[in-house]
Amino acid sequence: MKIAQVSPLFESVPPKAYGGTERVVSYLTEELVRQGHDVTLFASGDSETKARLISSVEQSVRDSALDHSWMGYHLIQMDVLAAMAEEFDIIHFHTDFLQFPTAKYFSTPHVTTLHGRLDLPYLVPLYRHFDSQHLVSISDSQREPLRWANWLATVHHGIPDDLYSFNPDPGDYFLFLGRISPEKRVDRAIEIALRCDRPIFIGAKLNKAEEPYFKEFIKPLLRHPLVTYVGEVGGKDKRELLENAAALLFPIDWPEPFGLVMIESFSCGTPVVAYGHGSVPEIVEDGVTGFIVSNQEEAVRAAMHIDSISRENCRAAFERRFTAPHMAANYLEAYRRLLAT
Amino acid sequence: MKIAQVSPLFESVPPKAYGGTERVVSYLTEELVRQGHDVTLFASGDSETKARLISSVEQSVRDSALDHSWMGYHLIQMDVLAAMAEEFDIIHFHTDFLQFPTAKYFSTPHVTTLHGRLDLPYLVPLYRHFDSQHLVSISDSQREPLRWANWLATVHHGIPDDLYSFNPDPGDYFLFLGRISPEKRVDRAIEIALRCDRPIFIGAKLNKAEEPYFKEFIKPLLRHPLVTYVGEVGGKDKRELLENAAALLFPIDWPEPFGLVMIESFSCGTPVVAYGHGSVPEIVEDGVTGFIVSNQEEAVRAAMHIDSISRENCRAAFERRFTAPHMAANYLEAYRRLLAT
Repeated sequence: MKIAQVSPLFESVPPKAYGGTERVVSYLTEELVRQGHDVTLFASGDSETKARLISSVEQSVRDSALDHSWMGYHLIQMDVLAAMAEEFDIIHFHTDFLQFPTAKYFSTPHVTTLHGRLDLPYLVPLYRHFDSQHLVSISDSQREPLRWANWLATVHHGIPDDLYSFNPDPGDYFLFLGRISPEKRVDRAIEIALRCDRPIFIGAKLNKAEEPYFKEFIKPLLRHPLVTYVGEVGGKDKRELLENAAALLFPIDWPEPFGLVMIESFSCGTPVVAYGHGSVPEIVEDGVTGFIVSNQEEAVRAAMHIDSISRENCRAAFERRFTAPHMAANYLEAYRRLLAT
Repeated sequence: MKIAQVSPLFESVPPKAYGGTERVVSYLTEELVRQGHDVTLFASGDSETKARLISSVEQSVRDSALDHSWMGYHLIQMDVLAAMAEEFDIIHFHTDFLQFPTAKYFSTPHVTTLHGRLDLPYLVPLYRHFDSQHLVSISDSQREPLRWANWLATVHHGIPDDLYSFNPDPGDYFLFLGRISPEKRVDRAIEIALRCDRPIFIGAKLNKAEEPYFKEFIKPLLRHPLVTYVGEVGGKDKRELLENAAALLFPIDWPEPFGLVMIESFSCGTPVVAYGHGSVPEIVEDGVTGFIVSNQEEAVRAAMHIDSISRENCRAAFERRFTAPHMAANYLEAYRRLLAT
C-alpha cells in the first residue's frame, strides 16, 4: 500500500528525547516499511527513517508561545503534501486538526489519529464542524468527551518487541516515569513507596511551567533516603530503570489518553499499579498485569502484593496486544475499511 | 463588488478595547458598505457591522499560549468561507498566513493584508513557499525583510474622518499613546517632555509580560510632577487627550509596520515628533506634519519648536492621505488590478 505518514514537526521522528506522538509515528512508519509497504514520512529533516522522508524544515521546531513559527512550518508541510496527495493510497495525519480545511480538497482518503486529550471545550464545535474527517482514537476512553465524532477505529499504541528485554529477576524498587505535573501525581507515587517501605526511583522531566509546583509540593518529598530523583531519562538509563523495577507506579489524576510507559513496562515484564483513569482500564488487566486502584489505601495494598503478579504474564500481554506489528496491523485494517467505503 | 472581508477572531470588529487589525477591518468594511458594495464580514459574533456578518464563534477569542483554541475557531471560519467562496468577486484576508494552504483551492481571487511585523526569520521560508498568494503591505517599509514576496500593493491605513475633531487651540502638554514596552520607548518620551519643561500624559496599555520592565525602568520616571500616567485609554478619554495635545511623541525603537496613532493624531491637527523607524518616514512629512528625528537632542529641539508646525496642515494631510474613504479607494484599486490579471 502507498502510505503517507504525516508527523508533527515539534520533535524529530523518532524524537531525540521526550515526544510521545513522534515516537509512535516512528514505530508505525518503520513497521509498515518492514512489512513491505511503500511509506512516505512527512517529518522534520533531522528525522531518521527507512521510509522516504519529505521535510519542509531542516530541524524540528518547538511550540513557542511567542511566535507562530511552528504553524508556518506545518502549513508548508501540508502544502507540500497537497501537491503529492494523489501519489498515495492513504494519508495518515498525526497533526491534530490543522489539516482539516485543506485535507477536504484531497481526493486521496485520509485519516487523523488524535494523540492528545480531548476534554477541552473548544474541541466540541471544532469536531462538530469538521464531521466528515475520519478519526482514530488511541484508547476508547479518549473518545468520551467527543463520543459522537466521526471515529473510524481505536488503535492502541505499540512498541517494537525488542525495544526492551524481559527481566524475570528485578530489583526491589518502585519506579515513577513521566513528567512532573499535578496530574501525574508523583507525590502519590512517593507516598505509596514509603508506606511499603520500599525504595522509589523517579525519572521525570520538569518543564519550566511546573517549577513552582515542583518546588512547593515535590522537592520536599525527595529528601527521604528511600527516594531517588534522577531527572529526565532516556535510552539505556530508562531501559535499565524499567527492566529492573519491581513495579511501575502510575497514580494519575487525569484522563490519560494512552500512557505509553505502561506498555513499555509490560514489555520488560514489570507490572503496573495504576489509578483507573482514562485509558488505564483498557491497558492494565487488573490482577494479571498489575492492579487498578482508586485510592491510596488500595494502591499501597496492591504495591505490597506486587509479587503476586507474574512478570511472564506482563510480557505475554505485551506480546499479545501492544507490539508495533500489532499496532500496524490494526492501522492497516482501519485503512482498508476506509478504502472500502 | 461582492467582497468578503475575513477578520481575525482575537477581538470583535471593531474591538471593545485594544486591537489594531480588527479596528482597521471595521473601518474598511463600513466604508465599503457605505460606498454601496455588497460586503460580507467574517468575524466573531460580538462584532457590529452594516455588512452581512458571518460568525463561526459567538465571542471573540484570545491568543492563548496554553491551548490552540484560537486556531480551532479560525479553521472553522476558513471552512465556512470555503463553502461560500464562489459567492464573492474577491476575498480579502486579514488573518496572516493561516489560510494559505486552503485558499489555493479557491477559484475566487483573494488577497491578504499583512498587519504585523515581518522581520522574523521563519517568515522567509513561509513566503518563499506560498509565493502565489497575493499580499498587501500596510507600509512600504514593512516589506523590507520580504522585498521579494508577491506584493500586490501598499495600502496605508485610514480612519473615519469624523472619528476625531480638528482642534486649532490645544493645551500645552505632550502625549504618549500606545503600549508600555521597550520598543515603544515611553522613557524617551518622558525625557523629551521634561527637557522641554512641559507636562506629558501617558495613555498606555500594560501587558502582564511587560510588568517587570515597567517596574524597573518606567515606574520610577512617573513620579515627576510633570508626568501623568492614565493607564489604557479609549473612547472619549483618548479623543480628548489626542485633540488637546500640543504634540504626540512617538520615539519608537522598532520597525513599526504602520502606527495608527500617528494618523489619529493628524486628524485632530496634532503634530507628531517621531523617530524615523519603520513606517514613520511614509506617514510623517518632516517639517509639515511634525518632525522626524534620530536622537534625543533632535527630538528635544523638535518638541521645543512644535508650534512652528501648522495644525491646519496636519489635518489637511490627514484628509488628503489617511481617511477611511482613501484607504477603501486604494483597496478597490488593488482588487480591480487583481481581477484584471
